This record gives sequence, structure tokens and C-alpha cells, in this order.
Amino acid sequence: MDQIIQCVPNFSEGKDLEKIEKIVAPLKNREGVKLLSVEPDKDYNRTVVNIIGEPLKVLEAVYEAVGIATELIDLNIHRGEHSRMGATDVVPFIPVKNIEMEECIELAITLGKRIADDYKIPVFLYEEAATCKERVNLAAVRKGQFEGMAEKLKDPQWKPDFGQCIPHKTAGVVGVGARLPLVAFNINLGTTDINIAKNIAKAIRHSSGGFRYIKAGPAELKEKGIVQVTMNVVNYKKTPLYRVFETVKMEAKRYGVPVLGSEIIGSVPMEALAMSMEYYLGLDGFSMEKVLESNL
Amino acid sequence: MDQIIQCVPNFSEGKDLEKIEKIVAPLKNREGVKLLSVEPDKDYNRTVVNIIGEPLKVLEAVYEAVGIATELIDLNIHRGEHSRMGATDVVPFIPVKNIEMEECIELAITLGKRIADDYKIPVFLYEEAATCKERVNLAAVRKGQFEGMAEKLKDPQWKPDFGQCIPHKTAGVVGVGARLPLVAFNINLGTTDINIAKNIAKAIRHSSGGFRYIKAGPAELKEKGIVQVTMNVVNYKKTPLYRVFETVKMEAKRYGVPVLGSEIIGSVPMEALAMSMEYYLGLDGFSMEKVLESNL
Repeated sequence: MDQIIQCVPNFSEGKDLEKIEKIVAPLKNREGVKLLSVEPDKDYNRTVVNIIGEPLKVLEAVYEAVGIATELIDLNIHRGEHSRMGATDVVPFIPVKNIEMEECIELAITLGKRIADDYKIPVFLYEEAATCKERVNLAAVRKGQFEGMAEKLKDPQWKPDFGQCIPHKTAGVVGVGARLPLVAFNINLGTTDINIAKNIAKAIRHSSGGFRYIKAGPAELKEKGIVQVTMNVVNYKKTPLYRVFETVKMEAKRYGVPVLGSEIIGSVPMEALAMSMEYYLGLDGFSMEKVLESNL
Repeated sequence: MDQIIQCVPNFSEGKDLEKIEKIVAPLKNREGVKLLSVEPDKDYNRTVVNIIGEPLKVLEAVYEAVGIATELIDLNIHRGEHSRMGATDVVPFIPVKNIEMEECIELAITLGKRIADDYKIPVFLYEEAATCKERVNLAAVRKGQFEGMAEKLKDPQWKPDFGQCIPHKTAGVVGVGARLPLVAFNINLGTTDINIAKNIAKAIRHSSGGFRYIKAGPAELKEKGIVQVTMNVVNYKKTPLYRVFETVKMEAKRYGVPVLGSEIIGSVPMEALAMSMEYYLGLDGFSMEKVLESNL
């Protein structure tokens, strides 16, 4: 059975569309690789690229794109609202089908080593690929940004996983990682009272005592006259969608507020939906192998 | 995006494993085609084969298998409990991914014509591929079986869609069709009273006034000490799983019997699960394109 991964490299260029075009060129019309989206953001001055495909073919394509980004982007003159440490800022590998996290970590190690060896850019492994717990959190790795990296890399605690202890002069350092797919999941409440969304978000998110893999906050949908609990489910296997949804319903009862429904922003892995179906239909002996398309 | 179909040819040989092996040989180790299962049944003297893959490659592989079945099976000496009209009895094409029913009907027409032209076997198109409403129901097409086909084909109403009005001497006639995937879905009731399963099956099935696309009956699971409503969902798009499940729960209340859960036998299309998720989570603006794997 074919293995499929997703990869979401972030490049520190969000304005010059010609440069962006050149960077993503190696990801296009390539056998075994499908470019899903290229999303430049002018304010962030950053482009998020989304591809899926066969593991080694994705790795090879991304390796080439990182090479081009290294040539075209000079962080000494880069300004943008999003923090960054490299011309290629981060490259996360994400297991999608018939592949374990372990194999995605291997891909991160392989790519990280090649980026350091061939492009002379120091590399940090992060999230699931991190070599120590201080490097799991990307924000901690990136702290100090491009401008602070020369100093940071002198600290033995921040010796890069690959490459020298000196940032690349124009391309900085790169974070290469492995993680599960994020699910952006929002739940709509039948009220205009943003405080209710705030309280429910607080009840379910990890940072204030809720579920381990939920990040949540309130949002106002003024046009619709409702509020929303807006979430990132960072591990849908351990905090499944149905559990969050039913908990939000349960909390909403305190306020006499109806849950109107929900929405998924972007994409969701088939397994995340199937796990919730297993709950609602009380499916016995269900496994992903039962899903017809899993056999491809 | 790749198109994927399923095909479930039924061959009238369920005992001689050597013959079966020869018939399915063209379906093995073939690029773009995956053989999911080969299930011979001795009592039926019939083998159900399950393959998925790229439309034209599946068609070509099945065409070859039908040729071998025509050489190896002589219906004049075939005995079995399952009714049959041909050495290759039926060949249904089933849309799975990025393909419409219309295209599966085209495949049925193409294969039907080739079987008639090259193997000299008359062909009836059935279900979605049927050319008139009398031929939609496979049981009506097959009525009279192999032994009665010579007589049946003389009736102008039963002129085959392709080929002559005389059955093949040893291979009879073949039904080639197009249909949606069946979902075999069973719901468990917390009681030993089979009459309750009977009554609920009656309430939900088409034949006695229930849902248009549900076939249902009762079953006893003696080892578990429970009963089951056992179903075939013949169109999961028009009668979705959640609707059947919630209706069975609603009916079970009449008897004070709990619904313990459910099970899916064999495979289920991703879309059938996703449609039920849409209901339970009240998902706004959901489409199959949001499922990560749909982009492959």
C-alpha cells in the first residue's frame, strides 16, 4: 500500500510573487507529489506551502525548494509581522496514510542533515522530531529570531542538531520537524455574548485546565450574529472531535445557549472523522481498513 | 486526480480452487488494479471477487478474467444453491472516487459490448446501466437461470443488450451493471427477543413501508445473547447511516430496549461515514474535498 505524507514548509517571503513562484517550482508537475496550496501573506511576509505525496518524493522536492529559497531570500532585509529564524523557516512532515510518526521523524532527520551538509544552514529538529524536550516547542526554538540566532547558537544548549554553530549569513537556521495534522475546528454558539465563548474556550483548552491537545479561544461572527469557540485540535487521535463537541454542548447548557453546529477550516484527516463516527454509531470492531478508500 | 472504481465480478465456480486461481490470475500483480478479496462458496458453487483500481485498467483485467471463466466453466454441469445465468454471472461497476455513476455506466456498456463481440456471450445491462426499467432488478434479469435462458431470449422483451438472442452453449449470458457500493450495516439491540428485531426491521425497510434504500431483517447472536437488525444500505447517499441508526433508536424506545451499538461488515465508502459526521457535528459547509486523503 502506498504511503502518503503531508509537508507544510513555510518560506520567509510573502510579497514578491515571482520569487515565490521560483521557490515552489520544484513542487509542481512532479510525479508522486501534489501541490495543494501556496498561501503568501503580505503582512507576515511569509508563504505557507501545502503538499502531499509519497514520502521520498516529497522530501526530494522540498529539498530542492529549500535550495532555491536559500538563494533568493536574504533575511537581513526581511521585515514581517510573523517571527522567523530562516529563509526556509520551518518544514514539518505529517503522516497521512500507511505511515507512522517514526518514519516522518526519519524523514525530518534525513532532510535536516542534507540541508546542513549541502546548503550550509544549521538545522533544529522540533516537535515529534525534537532531540530534547526544550526543542519540542517551535516557539522556543525560534525565540530570538534571525537577528538573535548568532548569539543563541553559541549557547551549548542550543547547538544545532545538524550543521555548525553559526547561522547561514542570509538564510539563518531551519526548523525541520514531524507532527500530526492539525484540525482547525470551530463550534458555533447561538448567542452574541462573547463572554460565553470565552468561558467555554477556557473550559476545554489545555492551557487553562481542559483537554491536553486543544488550543481554543473565542471569536465573534458579527454578520451571522453569533459567537464561536475557535480551536486547533493538535492531536485528533488523543482528543477526538466528538469529545470536544459533546463537551462544548455540555458547557453551553450552563448558559442556556444552543450549539448551532460546527465547521472545519482547511482539511481534516479521514481518520479524525471516522473516529467520531465510531463513537456516534457505537461501531463495534471498526478499523480504518474498513474504509474502502484505505485499500488504495 | 485519479479516478477509482470498485468491481465485484461473480463467477459460477466455488469448489475447484485451481480453476478459480486461473480465473483471477489476470486480476493479480497488475498496475493500477488491486485485488481485495476472492471468496469462493462451496454451497453456492460461486466465487465473489472484489477489486478496486483505475477504471480502464480494472475493465481490461476483468475482461480477461471473463475470457478465462468462459473457457473453464460449463454451466450444463454446474450445480449450486445460488441462482445463476452465466459462467461469469454478474459484473457490477461501482464508483468510488472522483468518478460519477454515468462513467461507470459507460464502463458497463464498453465491457458488455466486448464480451458479446469477442466471447460470443449475450449481455444484459442491469441496475443503473439498465436500458429499461424491467432490467434494473438483477433478479428479474436472472429469472429462469441458465437452463431457461434459451427460451427467455426468444421473447423480444428479453432481447439482450449486446449479442445474439441465443445463450452461449456453456457460458450462458452475463449481466453487466453499475451500482453504488452496498453498506452492510447491523445494529445491536440489548434483548434476546427476536420479535423486537423483526418489528424494527419491518419499520425501517423499504419493502414494508420504511426507507427507500434499506433492506433489513432480524438476526439472533446467540453467543452474545442479543439480537440484531441486519441491513443492506443500497444507497448511502439517499438513506444515510445516521438516519437509519437514529430511527432504530427511536423505534427501540417503544420496547424499552437499548441500542448497544452497530457494526459494518466488509467495507464502507469514506463518504458514507463523512455524511453521518456532518449530521452529528452539525458541520457547516462540509464537502469531501475537506478530507485530506481526497486530494490524492
